[in-house]
Amino acid sequence: MSVSNAPAMKKLRFALSLALFTGMPLLSQSQTTDVLESPDGHLQVRLATDTEGHLSYEVNYKDLAVIRPSRLGFLLEKPHMRLQRFLVLDRQNASADTTWEPVLGEVARIRNHHNELALELQDATGSGIRVMVRFRVFDDGVGFRYEFPDQEALDHFIIKEEVTEFALAGDHKAFWIPGDYDTNEYLYNTTRLSDIAALDAVARERDIAISSPIGDNAVQTPLMLVADNGLYINVHEAALVNYSTMNLVLDKATLTFRSHLVPDAVGNKGYLQTPAHTPWRTLVISDTPEAILASKLILNLNEPSQIEDTSWIRPQKFMGVWWEMHIGKGSWDLASGNHAANTENVKKYIDFASEHGIDGVLVEGWNEGWEDWFGNWKEDVFDFVTPYPDYDLDELTAYAATKGVSLIMHHETSGSVTNYERRMDRAFQYMKAHGMHTVKTGYVGKIIPRGEHHDGQWMNNHYIRVARKAAEYQIMVEAHEPSHPTGLHRTYPNWLANEAARGNEFNNAPALGITPEHQTILPFTRLMGGPMDFTPGLFHFKLNQFVPERTTVVRTTLAKQLALYVTMYSPLQMAGDLPENYRKHPEAFRFIVDVPVNWQDTRILEAVSGEQVIIARKDKESEDWYVGGITDEQERTARITFDFLNKGQSYMATLYKDGPKAHWDHNPEAHTIETRMLRHGTPLKVTMAEGGGFAIKVKAVK
Amino acid sequence: MSVSNAPAMKKLRFALSLALFTGMPLLSQSQTTDVLESPDGHLQVRLATDTEGHLSYEVNYKDLAVIRPSRLGFLLEKPHMRLQRFLVLDRQNASADTTWEPVLGEVARIRNHHNELALELQDATGSGIRVMVRFRVFDDGVGFRYEFPDQEALDHFIIKEEVTEFALAGDHKAFWIPGDYDTNEYLYNTTRLSDIAALDAVARERDIAISSPIGDNAVQTPLMLVADNGLYINVHEAALVNYSTMNLVLDKATLTFRSHLVPDAVGNKGYLQTPAHTPWRTLVISDTPEAILASKLILNLNEPSQIEDTSWIRPQKFMGVWWEMHIGKGSWDLASGNHAANTENVKKYIDFASEHGIDGVLVEGWNEGWEDWFGNWKEDVFDFVTPYPDYDLDELTAYAATKGVSLIMHHETSGSVTNYERRMDRAFQYMKAHGMHTVKTGYVGKIIPRGEHHDGQWMNNHYIRVARKAAEYQIMVEAHEPSHPTGLHRTYPNWLANEAARGNEFNNAPALGITPEHQTILPFTRLMGGPMDFTPGLFHFKLNQFVPERTTVVRTTLAKQLALYVTMYSPLQMAGDLPENYRKHPEAFRFIVDVPVNWQDTRILEAVSGEQVIIARKDKESEDWYVGGITDEQERTARITFDFLNKGQSYMATLYKDGPKAHWDHNPEAHTIETRMLRHGTPLKVTMAEGGGFAIKVKAVK
Repeated sequence: MSVSNAPAMKKLRFALSLALFTGMPLLSQSQTTDVLESPDGHLQVRLATDTEGHLSYEVNYKDLAVIRPSRLGFLLEKPHMRLQRFLVLDRQNASADTTWEPVLGEVARIRNHHNELALELQDATGSGIRVMVRFRVFDDGVGFRYEFPDQEALDHFIIKEEVTEFALAGDHKAFWIPGDYDTNEYLYNTTRLSDIAALDAVARERDIAISSPIGDNAVQTPLMLVADNGLYINVHEAALVNYSTMNLVLDKATLTFRSHLVPDAVGNKGYLQTPAHTPWRTLVISDTPEAILASKLILNLNEPSQIEDTSWIRPQKFMGVWWEMHIGKGSWDLASGNHAANTENVKKYIDFASEHGIDGVLVEGWNEGWEDWFGNWKEDVFDFVTPYPDYDLDELTAYAATKGVSLIMHHETSGSVTNYERRMDRAFQYMKAHGMHTVKTGYVGKIIPRGEHHDGQWMNNHYIRVARKAAEYQIMVEAHEPSHPTGLHRTYPNWLANEAARGNEFNNAPALGITPEHQTILPFTRLMGGPMDFTPGLFHFKLNQFVPERTTVVRTTLAKQLALYVTMYSPLQMAGDLPENYRKHPEAFRFIVDVPVNWQDTRILEAVSGEQVIIARKDKESEDWYVGGITDEQERTARITFDFLNKGQSYMATLYKDGPKAHWDHNPEAHTIETRMLRHGTPLKVTMAEGGGFAIKVKAVK
Repeated sequence: MSVSNAPAMKKLRFALSLALFTGMPLLSQSQTTDVLESPDGHLQVRLATDTEGHLSYEVNYKDLAVIRPSRLGFLLEKPHMRLQRFLVLDRQNASADTTWEPVLGEVARIRNHHNELALELQDATGSGIRVMVRFRVFDDGVGFRYEFPDQEALDHFIIKEEVTEFALAGDHKAFWIPGDYDTNEYLYNTTRLSDIAALDAVARERDIAISSPIGDNAVQTPLMLVADNGLYINVHEAALVNYSTMNLVLDKATLTFRSHLVPDAVGNKGYLQTPAHTPWRTLVISDTPEAILASKLILNLNEPSQIEDTSWIRPQKFMGVWWEMHIGKGSWDLASGNHAANTENVKKYIDFASEHGIDGVLVEGWNEGWEDWFGNWKEDVFDFVTPYPDYDLDELTAYAATKGVSLIMHHETSGSVTNYERRMDRAFQYMKAHGMHTVKTGYVGKIIPRGEHHDGQWMNNHYIRVARKAAEYQIMVEAHEPSHPTGLHRTYPNWLANEAARGNEFNNAPALGITPEHQTILPFTRLMGGPMDFTPGLFHFKLNQFVPERTTVVRTTLAKQLALYVTMYSPLQMAGDLPENYRKHPEAFRFIVDVPVNWQDTRILEAVSGEQVIIARKDKESEDWYVGGITDEQERTARITFDFLNKGQSYMATLYKDGPKAHWDHNPEAHTIETRMLRHGTPLKVTMAEGGGFAIKVKAVK
């Protein structure tokens, strides 16, 4: 940190420490105010201290209040103190306007354009502790974090709570899930802020493996807010490293959220050593909802790739021995007598993947331990290197190689993370010895170390440890049941995707399942943090296919399942259904075969959380575009103007859309496939059925 | 388990489960009593259930009460229930009389001679849960444990508390340390049972890194008791595997101890899955104190070696860059400017060890991380593979090899065990790459996983994991700051020794230090569980050698330090002092050079806890004997009759004894060395000074 006027600063510090040392009262200080604006001037952050040193910030957008004055600070456990009153020692301004290229992504190049203000603060209660508060203001939002520089007064310290407030300017409409230490797989709720009732929402859930709800006013981020004055505000965090996940607890009287970090086994919320910093607290702000989805603010606040050679990192599509267990055709465990992960069955998947150019085949239930894997807080549950006797991995490795398909490893931990960590090296070595380059991890269960939570600092570090160690072995990772993503796929581009939300598999959950609006909310919430392995592509909708008494259904049309490959960004996409179900609709499956998973450009054509999302993306490797549109339970008509196509270029569009009488509940499979020529600016009207959608391949021709 | 009358049993079980199922009250059952005697008939165990099904045991020795009727049972957390009332379904008797050979030990052969009774019990409250209680009665004591067989009614379960009672028959004299979840490094206290005041004892301690005392009536095992009627009783446990360490809490009104297991981070005390069993609860019983020390009961209750090829396991003596840090000559950390583990200094140790036939040189402070290692609950503290820049391990590896000396690795974890476990494989690989075969582990600090304790189930499993993984690499282990040993060196003979008590280094602790009686108590307490790395051999007694203002002293004479190599059994013995201090007494050091660390026979000649211990041991490799005698702060005269020597054999004895005016406080170094011839039956009188002792090498000649 550079100090603008070092000698003066030294003097001030000396005076202060003298004052503290001699027990003299602190010099009363006047209020301070600092203002920081976005490059385009629309966003304004105002930082102020009052006469007692309390620090607060406020945010305005085009003269509309986004965040009213809100306190910043900490409660520390060690040293045991409040860190909420400050002297402003110094202020530094900076700005940046750079462009960088993600390894994989929605766009080929990302602009990082912001202005920055860092306040250097000293605790006003006499500890001598120094803290920096750093704000970055982009045209599309604000990020800020706390920094604890290397200093004599503070080395190791323990956080009792972060006290960051978000005082909202109105009783906004909110898209929220209950605050929780262990799961983010809740269905989204849409209410006014004043109507948040998290524990009621928890009580409606029946199908989440492990939950640790926080309280009735607690919600998770990303939290999407829509104000009556037309403002769209998304609250989240970026670069969640060596820190606990932030939940938000609402004071309904003041419509103010306060941060609530996930505790560890003994109730502490963070162990840090200077120099250290928190994640960025992010506010993506706009007066159009599409700009929220287009924002790259969270990625811009993450660190560049820590992996130097990224040539081995590949976007992928895969199938898997997975859904058939969820719908009761097979089982994960051998003792069931119905073991799906057997050599013969996996060969069928390999054959189908190979025929259709699908890169990988995931195999769940391949290894010993599934008889006994869940619900017992068992530590030595899987060893990650012992296949069931009916699963001949050597044979399948050779077979897959001849078919040009890669097997994808599955490391379900059952939440027993100590066990996984001590076996991880050998597990990755085992993968490499069998030609596998991608692992799906899973954390279904109460965490071991017992008392730790999925979303605590220890586990957040674990997920990163996996990504880092996997990178040592040139292995790509996607995690199921991790904490909420915060853009770390920029820093660890081999960490391709996460579940970390209610994915397609919940269609099979009897209590709440997945509502038709769900997929229109996910881009505004979960996906703000990064790619999701939603496992789209279900072609069979009544889930009594193998167990006739089941009543659960997939609440989308077939065309909507196709659209999800475009509306849900991920460099790793599953074709979730069974080969036999795809064989019934080979023409529709063609879209899944064709759709890329890596893009050079993305346009958010229309997006309203809870209603509809229409997105166009341009293939990273060609001039082709793909468009996906989805709606909630309402029939809607999409009107697309293809003004993003190259001028003078002809395109052949293949349109996969809902059939005339399609409906998510009583006619989900009905779809039609049409082709037509398009040019720059061609208008197109597509009707989406209730719970429906459409997908378009727009191929550049001649 | 065999059932004597299977069809009848089946019928009974059916009737019971029917009764439970239909809510019918259980048939009232009559009292049952079973009696089990030791092979020699002196020890008698009586097991009884009362009319309500409460199970109790009592123990008598030669018609004297050892344990009055004492309850057995459990509180379970999951399923949530009391498991204390039983129906006796079956009883099985067995007996054994076998002999086995330890890999390393005090004797070449060990006889396992006992009678056994196993009661098969069923919970009387209707759960259907079955439990076995298995008793083994030896001539020198009793072992019993609970077993949970594989069964429909119980698979995974969680222990809330084990409720095993030890109702004593009088207000015995007890040698105890405070019950604690994290340390066993307390000084021993000697009081009547009714005068136990554990928290007062804790309050006197100032130099223990981490302690978690349980309560004023809580003590640890091994607990040594001396009854007014001349009985000696030692309470401990054997084969502590996958279970929490047992502490004992005294009800002073009834003089009854009750088991108190060490909890985990969330307060549970054990996670088990059937089939499972507890450790053995052990009572070593005799009417002579010497028989307590001679007992092999705890070893007999441990499982045979799980390591098949033990040819690489070697007893060893070593020196180390260690004590000079404790006494302020050097430091562990490089930043101190006084870093002891530098290449040049270590070469001096290698030279000295090589000159004197000492096998190994331990180097503490060799690796990065010591600047910041203690007191911060820091997770990523050491990586175990990065030497400080002034420590050239490659050069030292080559140098040690030319000198015929092995370097001994030091893995201080700072209590950050998650960190150690995830790095252990690479740490052991690093050792092997540098020709190292022995590691000293350390656990100074609060445990990570945070909330776990040194003595909990998770850590007890960790210590075993280290021994097992080390064995994969043919590495021998000694642990500092582990939980109390329970004879597991039989099962893992590469786990050579442990600290796990107040060792010689506490001479340097200013508050209590080590009292002259301490070493006479250790064989009756800590050493009942296995070898101790006490690090004897201090030749410099005023510990102001390098820091003049220090007032701490070693409270023994020099001769007593020599005697400890015989009185404290360990296959791994340190010559604890600095080469320069040994060079001042080369004749005395000769005993340390000569004394073996592996034995074919051992005779406890005289032993009174808290007063004196005199032991003779026969070298495993020759006909030579070594005798060690130590006293407390009293001058005593030892009278030895060498009736254990071979008849017709001549022996040359070298006697290292206290000088005429030797005294632990004002004249500790005074010693005389004499030689004389001995034969079978020769009597010898040796005076031990206050805080003194003697050591004799008895060499077979001609």
